[in-house]
Amino acid sequence: MKIYELGKIRDEEIFARSTAMSDVEDAVSEIIRMVREKGDEALKEYSRKFDHVELSELKVTPEEIGEGVTKAGSDFLAILKEAASNIEAYHRHQVRSDYLVADKPGEILGQRILPLERVGVYVPGGTAAYPSTVLMDVIPARIAGVKEIVMTTPPGKDGKVNPYILAAAQVAGVTTIFKVGGAQAVAALAYGTESVPRVDKIIGPGNAFVAEAKKQVFGQVGIDMIAGPSEVLVIADGNSNPAWVAADLLSQAEHDRNASAVLVTDSKELAEAVRKEIEVQLQKLPREEIARTSIEHNGRIILAHSLEEAVETSNRIAPEHLEVCTDHPFDLLPLIRNAGSVFLGRFDPEPLGDYFAGPNHTLPTGGTARFYSPLGVDDFVKKMQFTYFTEDALKKDYQKVAAFAEKEGLEAHARAVKIRFEDDL
Amino acid sequence: MKIYELGKIRDEEIFARSTAMSDVEDAVSEIIRMVREKGDEALKEYSRKFDHVELSELKVTPEEIGEGVTKAGSDFLAILKEAASNIEAYHRHQVRSDYLVADKPGEILGQRILPLERVGVYVPGGTAAYPSTVLMDVIPARIAGVKEIVMTTPPGKDGKVNPYILAAAQVAGVTTIFKVGGAQAVAALAYGTESVPRVDKIIGPGNAFVAEAKKQVFGQVGIDMIAGPSEVLVIADGNSNPAWVAADLLSQAEHDRNASAVLVTDSKELAEAVRKEIEVQLQKLPREEIARTSIEHNGRIILAHSLEEAVETSNRIAPEHLEVCTDHPFDLLPLIRNAGSVFLGRFDPEPLGDYFAGPNHTLPTGGTARFYSPLGVDDFVKKMQFTYFTEDALKKDYQKVAAFAEKEGLEAHARAVKIRFEDDL
Repeated sequence: MKIYELGKIRDEEIFARSTAMSDVEDAVSEIIRMVREKGDEALKEYSRKFDHVELSELKVTPEEIGEGVTKAGSDFLAILKEAASNIEAYHRHQVRSDYLVADKPGEILGQRILPLERVGVYVPGGTAAYPSTVLMDVIPARIAGVKEIVMTTPPGKDGKVNPYILAAAQVAGVTTIFKVGGAQAVAALAYGTESVPRVDKIIGPGNAFVAEAKKQVFGQVGIDMIAGPSEVLVIADGNSNPAWVAADLLSQAEHDRNASAVLVTDSKELAEAVRKEIEVQLQKLPREEIARTSIEHNGRIILAHSLEEAVETSNRIAPEHLEVCTDHPFDLLPLIRNAGSVFLGRFDPEPLGDYFAGPNHTLPTGGTARFYSPLGVDDFVKKMQFTYFTEDALKKDYQKVAAFAEKEGLEAHARAVKIRFEDDL
Repeated sequence: MKIYELGKIRDEEIFARSTAMSDVEDAVSEIIRMVREKGDEALKEYSRKFDHVELSELKVTPEEIGEGVTKAGSDFLAILKEAASNIEAYHRHQVRSDYLVADKPGEILGQRILPLERVGVYVPGGTAAYPSTVLMDVIPARIAGVKEIVMTTPPGKDGKVNPYILAAAQVAGVTTIFKVGGAQAVAALAYGTESVPRVDKIIGPGNAFVAEAKKQVFGQVGIDMIAGPSEVLVIADGNSNPAWVAADLLSQAEHDRNASAVLVTDSKELAEAVRKEIEVQLQKLPREEIARTSIEHNGRIILAHSLEEAVETSNRIAPEHLEVCTDHPFDLLPLIRNAGSVFLGRFDPEPLGDYFAGPNHTLPTGGTARFYSPLGVDDFVKKMQFTYFTEDALKKDYQKVAAFAEKEGLEAHARAVKIRFEDDL
């Protein structure tokens, strides 16, 4: 892991990011076309081809769900339920009410907040089968009031869905589960097939094919965001424990080879110590090869002259996860502008947020924390405006509306208000 | 305008929409590539090519803005200011506060709402230069607390920007204006050039090139939505004045040939009367040819058996604008689920909302009201989560977090919590 010093290097060396997307565009558009044309038949064909499994039914049965829950075990189920309860407690605060403006005689203005009717949640399978993501993606939808939450996930070679995924789906409140993965699942959710209902919005992370498919169906259906490789940035002062900081950096690095782990510190000693610790700990990891590649390609240790400068650097990088391992982490909170989720203090490592604390773990990556937000209840509602004017209220304003419309050259707009009050139209 | 009767026709005849997008994909990606490569030089070259004007400076000067405001005239300026004040009053209700959860000992969770730092507003020029859109797109950004609002708009052949646009920009609170239009403006805002600063999000409607460019830069930068042709759906009962209903339908139809105007009524008499009125009024419109094409291609009158069925039909179409011209419009409000903006009553024609009432006129089109919302303050903020745990608080939970991580096969995640409490790692 290379150490960089602010002021002594070019910006590109610090702010460059790995781009993992290969050219899957054409393959995905072909898959979407096939699913629209052949429906379930195409889904089953792709299951044979990609998941190496012959499916007679795409829908997971209540028996299969029950079996999965049993397999997951009561200990894990208890943890799932406690995590779900924490996630629910945090997200409940995001529920909003309609508002009404009735300040002027004869005029009522308002905004309604309405739940989406049907939502699709994509859950990756295989080695990246994360029950935590099921909780994070489904619970906010349920709190928002979404009636139907449809989950799709690729089956294993035995034609079954990972039992932990099934248990999490049960705890979170999923309505229906389909054994479909990849771009074909996204296509099915966007356009509907005989089995899979068309949804209003698709959320959830996935591989390059899933990301590209979401991008292609965007507009036909809502999407949450195009998720990129996971990222952590740790701001740590000289009092930090280098072993803890190294462990936190590695917890992101193990996600995938394109993940990035960055330390920004005002202490040269800590920088050196963390670099050594990373090498020591890497050798203890079952996913060593993945974590090592990530650290070698995208790992950085940046030396800043002050903690404030460290925060400013973080603001420019706009990381998905930001840890602030300092004596007085709340001092820096007001300075942090661009980050998905912030972990304050020495006892708030990022995995606590991945699983348990309550905030969401579906977060903006690739610098998009500049403008995107963590997944939450807002992502499962839509707003609808309304107005009501009485005759007197419109009469008071109609000439101004007509004048405005005429300045824009839209005579029919002007006529629509004038016709209610003027006879000679 | 053809009359359809519910139950007697195929769904496709009612729910099909015109798709106006031609194949501009390649042209747009070439423009983006050139702007990234050559910056301002490319922008000036495209000005020569597309706007037929030689620009020495891309930025609009304070003198030019002053000149525009004077030209716009004090009467229009007064209307602009009153409209701006109404828009501001409506949108102020959308401002949200940070929240904090501190219910458990040693655990603090929260969500911050932060304004985007820099936003780009695209404003079309030529015959589609709409000062109202400047107000609608800029005022919510200002209320959200965005520091820098950059506007781009194509100049006329005289190298100047429409004075009404400049006046509206001044009233709304735009920071800087550039004389750049088309896909090249979107590219400049997304990547930055020597003159045009890179923004965090681009909003505003435009032609097919602008829409395609927004789609292509999405991810690198936030976008509001891919705006399609304008739409109105009018639900009207038998007591409605057919001339008013026809005028309201035509006010959308005059927007563009792909605009759509749909009447849903439970009265055959009204259906017939509106059809006749449309023909009468079409002949009085300066934009008759555009409105006539829109009505002929996309205009529909749908007969429903009840007002409730009319609302259900509207929910399936999910129109951008929905008028409810009935005796008791508030009775139907709770049934309306999918619509951008709803106009209740006989004295609330859609143009009132376009210019003056206060709610936004940048609305979801093409059925996307199923999942998208009107533009508002939410579009100019991002959310940021944060947590803080004490040693005791983490100690209580860390084994559950580790167990969860191990179920997902992420040992380094488990280690990050365990290393703080266990010595044998």
